[in-house]
Amino acid sequence: MNISKLQPDFKLDPHSAQPLYLQIADLLSSKITSHTLPAGAKLPPERKLAALFGVSRTTSINAYRCLEQQGLVETKVGSGTYVAELSITRENALSGVPWHQLFTPSPQSPLSSILRELVDTNLDSGNISLAAGMPDPAFYPVKLFQKLFNQDKGGTNKADLGHIPTEGYGPLRLSVAGLLDAKGIHLSMENIMITAGSQQGLYLISKVLLEPGDYVVVESPTFIGAHQVFQASGARVLTLPVAGAFPFALLEDYLIRYRPKLLYMIPTYHNPTGRVLPENQRRELLQLAARHRLAILEDDPYSDLYYGEEPPPSLKALDTYGGVVYLSTFSKILCPGLRIGYAAAHPALINRLALEKQYIDLHSNNLAQILICRLLDQGSLPAHLAFVRAEYKKRRDALVEALRHFCHQDLTFSLPEGGFYLWCKIQVPVLSGRLLHEAAKTGLSFVPGEAFYSTPDGEREIRLCFTTHPEHLLSEAAKRLSEVLARLARADKRKETPVSIPFRPIV
Amino acid sequence: MNISKLQPDFKLDPHSAQPLYLQIADLLSSKITSHTLPAGAKLPPERKLAALFGVSRTTSINAYRCLEQQGLVETKVGSGTYVAELSITRENALSGVPWHQLFTPSPQSPLSSILRELVDTNLDSGNISLAAGMPDPAFYPVKLFQKLFNQDKGGTNKADLGHIPTEGYGPLRLSVAGLLDAKGIHLSMENIMITAGSQQGLYLISKVLLEPGDYVVVESPTFIGAHQVFQASGARVLTLPVAGAFPFALLEDYLIRYRPKLLYMIPTYHNPTGRVLPENQRRELLQLAARHRLAILEDDPYSDLYYGEEPPPSLKALDTYGGVVYLSTFSKILCPGLRIGYAAAHPALINRLALEKQYIDLHSNNLAQILICRLLDQGSLPAHLAFVRAEYKKRRDALVEALRHFCHQDLTFSLPEGGFYLWCKIQVPVLSGRLLHEAAKTGLSFVPGEAFYSTPDGEREIRLCFTTHPEHLLSEAAKRLSEVLARLARADKRKETPVSIPFRPIV
Repeated sequence: MNISKLQPDFKLDPHSAQPLYLQIADLLSSKITSHTLPAGAKLPPERKLAALFGVSRTTSINAYRCLEQQGLVETKVGSGTYVAELSITRENALSGVPWHQLFTPSPQSPLSSILRELVDTNLDSGNISLAAGMPDPAFYPVKLFQKLFNQDKGGTNKADLGHIPTEGYGPLRLSVAGLLDAKGIHLSMENIMITAGSQQGLYLISKVLLEPGDYVVVESPTFIGAHQVFQASGARVLTLPVAGAFPFALLEDYLIRYRPKLLYMIPTYHNPTGRVLPENQRRELLQLAARHRLAILEDDPYSDLYYGEEPPPSLKALDTYGGVVYLSTFSKILCPGLRIGYAAAHPALINRLALEKQYIDLHSNNLAQILICRLLDQGSLPAHLAFVRAEYKKRRDALVEALRHFCHQDLTFSLPEGGFYLWCKIQVPVLSGRLLHEAAKTGLSFVPGEAFYSTPDGEREIRLCFTTHPEHLLSEAAKRLSEVLARLARADKRKETPVSIPFRPIV
Repeated sequence: MNISKLQPDFKLDPHSAQPLYLQIADLLSSKITSHTLPAGAKLPPERKLAALFGVSRTTSINAYRCLEQQGLVETKVGSGTYVAELSITRENALSGVPWHQLFTPSPQSPLSSILRELVDTNLDSGNISLAAGMPDPAFYPVKLFQKLFNQDKGGTNKADLGHIPTEGYGPLRLSVAGLLDAKGIHLSMENIMITAGSQQGLYLISKVLLEPGDYVVVESPTFIGAHQVFQASGARVLTLPVAGAFPFALLEDYLIRYRPKLLYMIPTYHNPTGRVLPENQRRELLQLAARHRLAILEDDPYSDLYYGEEPPPSLKALDTYGGVVYLSTFSKILCPGLRIGYAAAHPALINRLALEKQYIDLHSNNLAQILICRLLDQGSLPAHLAFVRAEYKKRRDALVEALRHFCHQDLTFSLPEGGFYLWCKIQVPVLSGRLLHEAAKTGLSFVPGEAFYSTPDGEREIRLCFTTHPEHLLSEAAKRLSEVLARLARADKRKETPVSIPFRPIV
């Protein structure tokens, strides 16, 4: 190559604060990135480079070393220095910035990727996933959304697609207040904030109330996403067992000893167990909470999905001291991709939540807010709910029947009166993690119980979501599950050693 | 009232850990919230209550006090104790939980509500807002979105409305990679993450890279939302003046002295000044950054909106060391209500950003992601961009002409070659805050310069957004502005004292 190309109108500045080798490296670097020096071009030997710029050989060596560190040139031993290929692969391999070293401490945990994996579940290719808590996509009211979207006549509402207040689209906040009114929660628009799913409600509450070292009380087991958010906040987690009557004495002990900032609960069709807290226990809990001025975060995504009697009133409907923060979502009853949930709480809290949300996304997406608002205002929700309730009831019953038929007493469970999940106890000596591992080979997935605990529990429990697939697939799932279970139980018996147990004793 | 109603089948437990007055208060509370004791009902006098339960009068007084604190009863002096009205107003007035005392330290600042107010701008009722950086709602391609939404035939894509990966809707990530490819940014899908507007990109980057005490370098002035996010992170902010050539020596000094985690920049059609960083300075900046392994956050919402020559390549297009994180959004070119932006960066960073985003909202809304993906894939973006560029150019020119006509030399500015804003310097002795205050009375708003600085600057600067309104309103805005400006300047001259200055000397 014609090396004079390198410095047609360039003079080194010996008085610059920048060392000479860096001045040369910068020049070469600009020639390389502008493709004046193309990939693969051979650069002059160090001696020649030094002569060209009138510098020492050490200076020219340092200039090449610097370019090599930036990934711009490659040195081939015995051959010389060449301009490197700037491919996509190289960009990703570039270590120009040591990203991993720059990151803030990560909220990594054994749970940290479970939620993402659940969300990422592939429903195609003959797999049966009873893992993610998903409605059946076939039931998403897409045609209704299309009709509602087309109602936008002449663009009169175009401004609604611009920026709206952080608290949410005004008409939707009003409609949600109306929706809650019908459930005995009497609030006004200023008590309502629209969120990006109830996940965001959880995140915002945690951001606004929890600092590292604060205490938060959760049920055990409980929703994975709540575990993750609380863990990431640095809060210390106290647990209340879900099984049996509500442990008032234990809670009161926590309240007195630790003064927790928050109690997180799913009182209705609890995730994962399906439990419904009876009304008298709800009232007793509220009295205890009121006395201690305890804030309760009530997560209520499932209460519209009852398959027999309607559930008791929500904690928020019974709240007389103003301490219940209510979260719900349209993800389970309409579709998750809307990413629209809402929080109902005291205006002081709503206001502070909005301040945080502003930094995160300014406001939630208007398209879905407008569509849901029209759907509610036109009275289309009750018919849709009646339809999915009827379908999900059939599915619950189909899975229950199939499990009883195929798995007999190997799996036991209580019949959930609503919601999405069947919470099963494994009655043979097989661990849920091992069961999932083997079931996955047959194309079946579910969530092993451990995921719902912050303590080392749940190794003999699994959560099956019965809403995503039609009856015949639920039946097929139960069959596959029974086969894997039987095989593992036999293998276990034959060897007479607990194959999966060495890592962690059963407690 | 028949006070025997109060305790038909209730016995106090003298051995309980719960004091007697609380046992009584709990009983009454449950009667009130269940409406057994209706609002307005008169409760027995303390003496009678004591007799009824066989307790001391102090105990019955304490029981009523406790209920009063909970807002459940009201004491009317000389009349007695009554069950309170449980209205919405009361729920909001309830101080059952002292919310303000529970909040984590707030990122409050003089700036903290400005962004929300801008977003909340009311465009109706004859007001002319040149404040928020908003496209004209009349240009939102609503009909196109309707057409694209209706293309969903037979629900084959219904699963796309379920949960999708946190990083975004796969086909959209691919389309965005294609969009960037045409701009000289050659990346693959794994380098792209979809965010809820570029605001969320900013938030996530800050969350992942900045800890309290870290340094971040920003241009001064710069985007309000960036100031707020960095401030909330607890980072210390170093500033680089935007006016004049890029201050390389100052930046290098910062890099050596403070080792900042991040440089935040809007190189193209800078907000608020409209400045474009020339290509040679971009290259020089990247060389400097590469040597110091400095991460650069390039915010690029405006580069498609050029009104003459196309702008130079983005920093990301020129990035050879992999240190540039690129943020952009569809808010300015399509419509803000989609809440869809994207980040392009090294996969290590994308992966960590996704981990954080998962806690915040699981993933961004699918409806808008699907619509934008279809819009890109069907090649509809270039025509829309050509249309809005032509319109916004007319508007920029109309505002410029009107300002020159009405305000003469009272306001000076450089002609922005693209973007949304005209950045004006006030050449008469009038402060921008005062000007806004008076202009607002005429129904005109804009952003005073102070909002864009973290230092006490900008008191003689204002930002006018020229894209939201048609030409005749921009002309009207310039007229109103000139009148207010002239009036204030005269008033100032007459009094010969600087009316707005006492609070803060001009620097």
